[in-house]
Amino acid sequence: MITLYDYLPSGNGYKVRLLLSQLGIAFKRVELDITKGETRTKEFLAKFPNGRIPAIELDDGRLLFESNAICWYFAEGTPMMPADIFERARMMQWLCFEQYSHEPYIAVARFFAMHPHVQDPRVALKGMIVQRGYEALGVMEEHLKSHEWFAASRYTIADIALFAYTHVADEGGFDLAKYPSIRHWLERVRSQPKFIPIAQA
Amino acid sequence: MITLYDYLPSGNGYKVRLLLSQLGIAFKRVELDITKGETRTKEFLAKFPNGRIPAIELDDGRLLFESNAICWYFAEGTPMMPADIFERARMMQWLCFEQYSHEPYIAVARFFAMHPHVQDPRVALKGMIVQRGYEALGVMEEHLKSHEWFAASRYTIADIALFAYTHVADEGGFDLAKYPSIRHWLERVRSQPKFIPIAQA
Repeated sequence: MITLYDYLPSGNGYKVRLLLSQLGIAFKRVELDITKGETRTKEFLAKFPNGRIPAIELDDGRLLFESNAICWYFAEGTPMMPADIFERARMMQWLCFEQYSHEPYIAVARFFAMHPHVQDPRVALKGMIVQRGYEALGVMEEHLKSHEWFAASRYTIADIALFAYTHVADEGGFDLAKYPSIRHWLERVRSQPKFIPIAQA
Repeated sequence: MITLYDYLPSGNGYKVRLLLSQLGIAFKRVELDITKGETRTKEFLAKFPNGRIPAIELDDGRLLFESNAICWYFAEGTPMMPADIFERARMMQWLCFEQYSHEPYIAVARFFAMHPHVQDPRVALKGMIVQRGYEALGVMEEHLKSHEWFAASRYTIADIALFAYTHVADEGGFDLAKYPSIRHWLERVRSQPKFIPIAQA
């Protein structure tokens, strides 16, 4: 059975949990507390040199890290990934946007709110983090004004990746009141078959 | 012909220039100076809402942004992308690693060195940027001790993406003296057919 190294509050871990649940793929979870350095042990780093969850281990020992790469692997050949090459590239575009322009602000603001005593030099950049988080939400809102989903005419892993931290953006202090298209899209994601909430193992 | 919106000093733009050159795909370049806000004009944002280069426009008007997504699109069906699903996921893993754990440190340190008078609150995090940049180089060095390339048994877009800013890491103050496996890999990339240097249009 697939082993998922995970941390329940993590939106990045949630992407994989949600996708595997929706695809009906069985997996066992190994919970690692990132706030206690459990992904920086010698044993974990020997398998996953970047020291981050989520990460997976297949039955034959093959290893993969990075949430969006893991989602890509399991989505191949399923309705969660478009068959058209350009639509796949567009899905990739939104996955990159999520990791580069969205997660470092939306997720990081939530992490600071959940761990107010954390020692992290980025706390000094709170103003920039909030501003760039809203910029990312602005890009999403603009897209969703004229599109039902992100990469194609249906729900794909681009929606899963962007949903993961957007739907808990309020926990980091972001107010979605002025983003009606995002709020409607969040509801569309929540109404997908076999949806599970973020903290559910 | 394909239009590439680009900025010559950008490593992200270079990824696309290098790949298109190596694949023998013709394109025309539109140079936009990111330091003068030329990617934040109303006209550019209407096409590319994240306001960043590189971005491409196809003959039929289709648009795509995010350097690694553009590389993915052009690499599909070529030797630059593995046919095996797991190897493709591993390529995706390194592309995500590059955008999340490498570029924000290696590229940003170089940007600050090239633009010493830039107003950017991240300048205050110089110590963290240097530390995390070296952590990313450490992950790469460890991988390259036992692998010739990143994602497969041959050169792929994962190598292009990681090469783009690693080969100019010294311009941001990073010293590669203690990373012999990285230095040998840089030479292997430079010796690939139709290689072009970063500042060549």
